Amino acid sequence: MSPSLIPVERILLGPGPSPVPQRVLRALGAPTLGHLDPQYLAIMDHTCEQLRQVFQTKNPLTFPVSGTGMAGMECLATNLIEPGDEVIVCVNGVFGTRMKDVMERCGATVHAVEATWGDVIALEQIIEALAKHPKTKLVGIVHAETSTGAHQPLEGFAEVIHAHGALFVVDAVTSLGGHELQVDAWGIDAIYSGTQKCLSCPPGLSPVSFGERALARMDARKTKPQSWYLDVSMLRKYYTGGGGGGGRVYHHTAPINMTYALHEALTMVLEEGLEARIARHAQMHQRLRTGLEKLGISYIPKRSLYSLNCLQIPAGAEDAVVRRRLLEEYGIEIGSGLGPMAGKAWRIGLMGYGASIRNVDLVLAALRAVL
Amino acid sequence: MSPSLIPVERILLGPGPSPVPQRVLRALGAPTLGHLDPQYLAIMDHTCEQLRQVFQTKNPLTFPVSGTGMAGMECLATNLIEPGDEVIVCVNGVFGTRMKDVMERCGATVHAVEATWGDVIALEQIIEALAKHPKTKLVGIVHAETSTGAHQPLEGFAEVIHAHGALFVVDAVTSLGGHELQVDAWGIDAIYSGTQKCLSCPPGLSPVSFGERALARMDARKTKPQSWYLDVSMLRKYYTGGGGGGGRVYHHTAPINMTYALHEALTMVLEEGLEARIARHAQMHQRLRTGLEKLGISYIPKRSLYSLNCLQIPAGAEDAVVRRRLLEEYGIEIGSGLGPMAGKAWRIGLMGYGASIRNVDLVLAALRAVL
Repeated sequence: MSPSLIPVERILLGPGPSPVPQRVLRALGAPTLGHLDPQYLAIMDHTCEQLRQVFQTKNPLTFPVSGTGMAGMECLATNLIEPGDEVIVCVNGVFGTRMKDVMERCGATVHAVEATWGDVIALEQIIEALAKHPKTKLVGIVHAETSTGAHQPLEGFAEVIHAHGALFVVDAVTSLGGHELQVDAWGIDAIYSGTQKCLSCPPGLSPVSFGERALARMDARKTKPQSWYLDVSMLRKYYTGGGGGGGRVYHHTAPINMTYALHEALTMVLEEGLEARIARHAQMHQRLRTGLEKLGISYIPKRSLYSLNCLQIPAGAEDAVVRRRLLEEYGIEIGSGLGPMAGKAWRIGLMGYGASIRNVDLVLAALRAVL
Repeated sequence: MSPSLIPVERILLGPGPSPVPQRVLRALGAPTLGHLDPQYLAIMDHTCEQLRQVFQTKNPLTFPVSGTGMAGMECLATNLIEPGDEVIVCVNGVFGTRMKDVMERCGATVHAVEATWGDVIALEQIIEALAKHPKTKLVGIVHAETSTGAHQPLEGFAEVIHAHGALFVVDAVTSLGGHELQVDAWGIDAIYSGTQKCLSCPPGLSPVSFGERALARMDARKTKPQSWYLDVSMLRKYYTGGGGGGGRVYHHTAPINMTYALHEALTMVLEEGLEARIARHAQMHQRLRTGLEKLGISYIPKRSLYSLNCLQIPAGAEDAVVRRRLLEEYGIEIGSGLGPMAGKAWRIGLMGYGASIRNVDLVLAALRAVL
């Protein structure tokens, strides 16, 4: 027997994917076009323009990589690193740990700058690390650590990193569209995100943006990027029409229908307005926080994200039982702890369309009933 | 102004994507679930089981890679090759050329076995190349060369390749679900395909399958695969539950809705029956061929695929004008020639749902009117 393709709907309040509105699901199901069809190219170009607005950048090279968030991380690493390069990676959770692994696989010597899981990295640590490793070519940091809920400040980082001639590379998977994030104003050279968090689109694409310094680094490469699929020197000829004679050059077949969904999701972000959307995320986070405190549940990170709330499992509560009851009785998905936080943390995501009064009050009511 | 997300529908008779039936588009838009939701895991497990049936294999490690077809190619290369390995790649079109590039980026020394574009590779060429390069660890070949329409025979290859202790690796992007293809019976060790060709699903996933020899090769690796995103040692813990204690281990967020679409597309393949489906592809190819010959249009490859018909542009016909008129007046997309065939070839795809009497007779009528 085939499992039902009309699944019981869930309220996705975990670490992602987040709830996808009907408008986006409908766009996803629009008729498939060819990847060189003028209609598709218009939708894709407009999607890239919308991404520039949401990233707050003028970078011409802004497009969705054809894979989920981690493909974006790998795209930046494989294009910006050459074997033997020294890089600094900030590690204070699962995603910093991964970035280190991904960059090592690209042949980099990675110097880790660490903080306890749940804490953030201090600018002084970067300054020290750069002084200790003057050959550093790139500094990678996670803006929104989905595994711990820690909200990393990024202001002031670019000046320090650029003074050393290094690139400033940011993971914004769980912040784009839900948190203040200004690629140009903050001097970010390359950034990646995912569609399935605060943008409220299904998983399947990873928006990226590369600034001038990153372009110059890629243009100066002596070796081909080790990934063909993610090679920006070819991708840019498709996404920005930078092929010989200005025409578009086929690289790989883009995930057409996913682009429709991302386009619709970004349209909704821009209709709401970035500022209003971020304010909504802040308000819903505060509403949840107030409610949780009344239940005696506390946050793990000192500086919590709005989009991802990482909570200490209260004494006496059984992790798996509570999550199963929320899922079975309420249709609510929340996330478990990862790595050293397994069994100790719950992660409640309030992302994009999911960050609503309805969801906050419901999850609070459900927790009250179940605990 | 935002471009319309209700695009004018096209009849996709190019090299892919192919027409996607409404049933599949509807499945694509089903409510998004979490990637560890029991409902999603059931759909994903069943999708893998369906893939085994369509690949005609018992390989437990059969799953959709989270990217388009070329991500599948890269997945095989990055996992099966270690830097310094010698490999043989058959090159007789764009996709063999790419496979060589992808494997070189993985650090392989690639010995190319070549044939004129449009021709196929003879088994004798492989025998000679293996004799000349006895350290060869892998032989890669394209079953259905989408750029030339050549249909590569694969029978007898495995015996020769296995006798040298090498792996038999196949690109089946444009053949899976439209051509005879028996992974186990033909001794194929690793294979990849795409969803957007004869499976009639939008682009976005790349089904792959690894046999025992390929698993042994991966288990014996001395180095990590250079791609984290495509690292099968981690992916298998999610897709086959082979984590410690038998549980599933989170790797990356799978493209949930694309899995729904693939599941529905495979359900349609199996409802029709593989044998009937392949026979339909053969019949529609023959019907098109007969009609084209009446129009004085001839095929480029001697052994043509059913799914992709690569034609000599007749004298006097202007390539771009004809394709534009087909698109604008009939809403029909056909493909142009690639590489040395640019301006010389048209490529008409009859793939999956698109391989119908209606489409064949329509494209013939349209060509008759336009030429």
